[in-house]
Parts: sequence; structure tokens; C-alpha cells
Amino acid sequence: MKTLENLKNCFRKLQGVGPRQAERFTLHYLRAPEAEVAALIEALLEARKNVKYCTECFNYSEADLCPICADKSRDKSILCVVQEAKDIEALEKTKVFKGVYHVLHGAVSPLEGKNIDNLKVRELLERVQNSPIEIKEIILATNPDSEGEMTALYLADLLRGLVGKISRLGYGVPLGAQLDYIDEMTLTHSLKGRTDL
Amino acid sequence: MKTLENLKNCFRKLQGVGPRQAERFTLHYLRAPEAEVAALIEALLEARKNVKYCTECFNYSEADLCPICADKSRDKSILCVVQEAKDIEALEKTKVFKGVYHVLHGAVSPLEGKNIDNLKVRELLERVQNSPIEIKEIILATNPDSEGEMTALYLADLLRGLVGKISRLGYGVPLGAQLDYIDEMTLTHSLKGRTDL
Repeated sequence: MKTLENLKNCFRKLQGVGPRQAERFTLHYLRAPEAEVAALIEALLEARKNVKYCTECFNYSEADLCPICADKSRDKSILCVVQEAKDIEALEKTKVFKGVYHVLHGAVSPLEGKNIDNLKVRELLERVQNSPIEIKEIILATNPDSEGEMTALYLADLLRGLVGKISRLGYGVPLGAQLDYIDEMTLTHSLKGRTDL
Repeated sequence: MKTLENLKNCFRKLQGVGPRQAERFTLHYLRAPEAEVAALIEALLEARKNVKYCTECFNYSEADLCPICADKSRDKSILCVVQEAKDIEALEKTKVFKGVYHVLHGAVSPLEGKNIDNLKVRELLERVQNSPIEIKEIILATNPDSEGEMTALYLADLLRGLVGKISRLGYGVPLGAQLDYIDEMTLTHSLKGRTDL
């Protein structure tokens, strides 16, 4: 049936959604109460209309400034650079970081044809150079994989000289893990970064 | 952000979609081209407007009769009862079955509070009783799990006397499987149902 195929193909565009899941979504929305479909459409349109980038950090925001950048108690001299907006949520849960963020919206990835022109890197440099207060430290919190690593090294090169300190998240064994399941690179890092007791 | 939370909560209603996948879907639709969002909304509305149940077999259909029921070459004296519309697709791929279907839209499940009143069972009985031609056989092709099994036994009770033959899909080892990975119930069935060579 063409109508159902159309809807299924829409869901196939979502990353990680295969033919079976797309079919399940399609049947779900065929059977769902009218109100649920209306709510989805409304939420989609609202999100598209109201959500934009924060003009400072490029996090998603409904206002010009996101709640974090608008918060006067945050320390604007420490910048934490992340790949995706959702990384901010994870870091905020630690309640440890009191600085502000900068969202790159991706990582350098030659395979996917993504270079720094597709990321908010120029904006980061401008932000650092034009900052009204001195930026003391930039934490490069890109993902601990090859793309995130490459992006961090690249940014470190660009930022060197502009800020006093450039740092990277510490590597090591994650809490709750079992040693025999941890890859050797992580273990190497955890040995090098061992702390005194 | 409330707008994004709203959209995320919409996706959480989909079966099997957790918080992370809902978040990925949300970000996907924030970044997607305008045309993709428009296509999704259009496909949703079209599906809701145009797709209804086939009046004979309760498969999804854009016309009063689904393509299978409308096909004059199909044998209407053999009825194959399935739980879900998507099961029809799987059975049609075999190209072996030339009869028609009846979709229950679920299985009896006391745990989920689903009894025969929520299924197209009354419609099945009416269909059998009012059929212009004699129905010779009903194949109960519900799933080979406890709920499908229970549903099949229940239907067999109800249909006994109304049709000449009531059958169930054959159990056994699936092709391409490795014996040591197959559960003992299936193996028991495959031994009982062994065929001469």
C-alpha cells in the first residue's frame, strides 16, 4: 500500500531505524488515538519554529541565550567544548562544572566528508577572541574516539596561544566496569593516569 | 527545554524507543531539511485519512476490500488467521498459500488485559457463519508463543463444528538453524513431526 510505504520510508530516514522498526512505528501511528498524532505534529512544528541556536554557545535554545549562558552565576572564563548538545546534559548531571559550553555540532570526520567548516569552529575562535573577559581554560570534551580525538588535537592547535590552558577529559577505567572487559588502550591510559592513595 | 521535551515524549510513546533514541529522533528532526519534516507530517495525515480496515479480512487497506480479498483468483474456502497485518506479508512471500486471511489485531493476553473482545474474533465467527461459499479449512497461524498458542486453542474451540478442518502451522526446526541452539520444546515438536525420507 503506497500510503503506508510513504510513512515507513519517512521513518527509515531516522538513523538506526531498520525496516521492521519503521513498520512498527507506522502501525503504531495507524492505531494511535487521534490526539497522539496531533500532539506529535504539533510538537514537530513547534520545535522547528521555536528552537534555534543559543547565540553564545550554539546549544539548542528557545531564547537568544540558552539557560546556561543566561545564568549570571556561571563562570564565563572556563569553556567546555562538546560535540553535541546532548553532551551538555550528561556533563551538567555531574554538577561539577560551573563554566559555560560551546557546541561544535559534530566532529571532524574525513570519511563522512565533515571538516571544520561544517562545525562551529570559526564561531569558537571568534568567541574566544572577542570575549569581554579573559578565557582562562578551554576543556576539549569531544568523544574519546578517533574522530573526537582528531577534533580535539585540531582545536588545540588552533587555540594554542589564545588561552592559558587547554585541557582534555581524563581517560581511565569507568566506574562499575570489569577490568577484563576493558580494552587495552583504556587500561594503558588508566595506568599512566594512576593516582596516589 | 519544554519544546524539545514535548517532542521527545511523543517519540517515547513508540514501543521499544528509550530516552536516548527519542533524543536522537528529536535532534534528527531539528536538523532535518524542511521538506523531510513536511513529508513526514503529510504521510502521517494521509495514512490516518486513507488507510482503514478491509471489510472482509481486517487487513489494512485503502479500498473497502484489500488487494488479496479483491483478487478473484484467491480461494475463499481456506482462511488463514493471523495476529497482525504484517504476518500476511511474511506468509505471502512463501507464494504457497492461495486462500484468504483474517487479521485478529493481537492475541489473547491476560497480562495485558487483552481478551477476545479486543480482537476481531466476533467478526471471524460472523464471517465464517455468513460466508456465501463453504469454508473448508481454517489455518490458525498465530505466533508460536504462549499467547499465540492460547489464542489458537481458544479459536479452535469456538470454530469447532463450523468448519471441516482446523489446522495450525507446523512446528519444527527452522531452516539454517544449529541444533544445539534450539530449545527443547521445538526439538520435541520436530521429533514428533518427523517426516519420512
